[in-house]
Amino acid sequence: MSEFKPTLFTCFSPNLLHLYDVSDTIVVIIDVFRATSTIAAALKNGAKCVIPVDTVAKAVELSRQIDGIAAGERDGKIADGLAHGNSPLEYHPSFIEGKILVLTTTNGTRLLHMALENGADAIITGSFPNLDAVCKYLIEQKKNVLLGCAGWKDRYNLEDTLFAGAVIEQVRDHFSIHCDSSLTAELLYRQQKERLPEFVSSLTHYHRLVERFGLIEDIRFCITPNGANVLPIYRDGKLLIEPTVAVREQG
Amino acid sequence: MSEFKPTLFTCFSPNLLHLYDVSDTIVVIIDVFRATSTIAAALKNGAKCVIPVDTVAKAVELSRQIDGIAAGERDGKIADGLAHGNSPLEYHPSFIEGKILVLTTTNGTRLLHMALENGADAIITGSFPNLDAVCKYLIEQKKNVLLGCAGWKDRYNLEDTLFAGAVIEQVRDHFSIHCDSSLTAELLYRQQKERLPEFVSSLTHYHRLVERFGLIEDIRFCITPNGANVLPIYRDGKLLIEPTVAVREQG
Repeated sequence: MSEFKPTLFTCFSPNLLHLYDVSDTIVVIIDVFRATSTIAAALKNGAKCVIPVDTVAKAVELSRQIDGIAAGERDGKIADGLAHGNSPLEYHPSFIEGKILVLTTTNGTRLLHMALENGADAIITGSFPNLDAVCKYLIEQKKNVLLGCAGWKDRYNLEDTLFAGAVIEQVRDHFSIHCDSSLTAELLYRQQKERLPEFVSSLTHYHRLVERFGLIEDIRFCITPNGANVLPIYRDGKLLIEPTVAVREQG
Repeated sequence: MSEFKPTLFTCFSPNLLHLYDVSDTIVVIIDVFRATSTIAAALKNGAKCVIPVDTVAKAVELSRQIDGIAAGERDGKIADGLAHGNSPLEYHPSFIEGKILVLTTTNGTRLLHMALENGADAIITGSFPNLDAVCKYLIEQKKNVLLGCAGWKDRYNLEDTLFAGAVIEQVRDHFSIHCDSSLTAELLYRQQKERLPEFVSSLTHYHRLVERFGLIEDIRFCITPNGANVLPIYRDGKLLIEPTVAVREQG
């Protein structure tokens, strides 16, 4: 008798999210460059929580109301009207510890709100800095999973796909996976994992970030596994590390 | 001084087509399993033209009016109300020569109509059976290209991606390609091209077709290069081989 396994699908663009039933499903929001890398870094470094919001105006208003830090980017740059951007390296413990980060980004925070509206059972965020924490959680939960790639303005991108592949490589024995997107992600990751830094230098988003804004240190952090190995879970409008998860993580 | 090159993009789903500007662009409709393989086979085997239509009702009505052959599939099977399906092997010369095929399919014909509505400059169809004819045409035309994967009910699929990769491998020096979808397609094709028959047996659509309907011969034809090496061009509502193209093809 074969063991029952939950399903795992990968969705390559927010524009394809409606094709998947996300009820009873954990949705992993993936925005490697850089929203979900920044979220992991901020929480790892002691932020009380991260509140993802749609617009710059909301980020400014809410951060005033709750004495938080308004941050975000549009088109890869610090958004007009904000003092802080979407760089994971901005959020050192000396700056972020005990604070609330109110974050708005082009792709990642938008996908999170879409997953919420579509009725996802649980939402977490993932990127290479918290790869192992994501995989451990997905294996423990024994629920259906959708790996949701944020892409770039609804287009497919490779860095989010590579992270989906890295997750699949670790969790595949625990899930029933019949999905060409997942197969593609895993094949590409297995093909490229030994040379990720060289490989990402060929990606469109790399050129957008590094050539235009000089963010090579950011990129390095974003593609290195487990540099901020915490599990951000979305509850009541904010991303935080649950006490039980934090304890488990330390153990 | 670097030579001017037209752009090439790959679009993984009809649901993402609106993200690309297709004016002044040749759109290649790709539906490997099986619409665009069937179109190549029917034209190669002497069909006067292929008229792609949206619905079964239109296929039936139009084929009566023009004394054509109504054919098509829904969910991989011959559509209810039609005598002929979407199998390239159905269209032997003895059956199709001099006839008009009126074809409706789940994914390919739908994408073709979307490209038309979005103002594509030219529309051709491609699959492994006419790989070289497609590449030769794209190189000769020196225009922007969008490789449009029909997918399966708007989801990404691997067989269409592999064909996009096969095209890119041949034409890449003639185009400016900065697109993660194209890079993914080319990497996967290079990785799998020596073992395509084994590889496609792992794809979701393979299981749909072979396990449920036993179409293994169809699949073999659809992934073998140049078995029907003609160039179907869409003009005035129909796909046909242009006389000039046909002559060039024979030369």
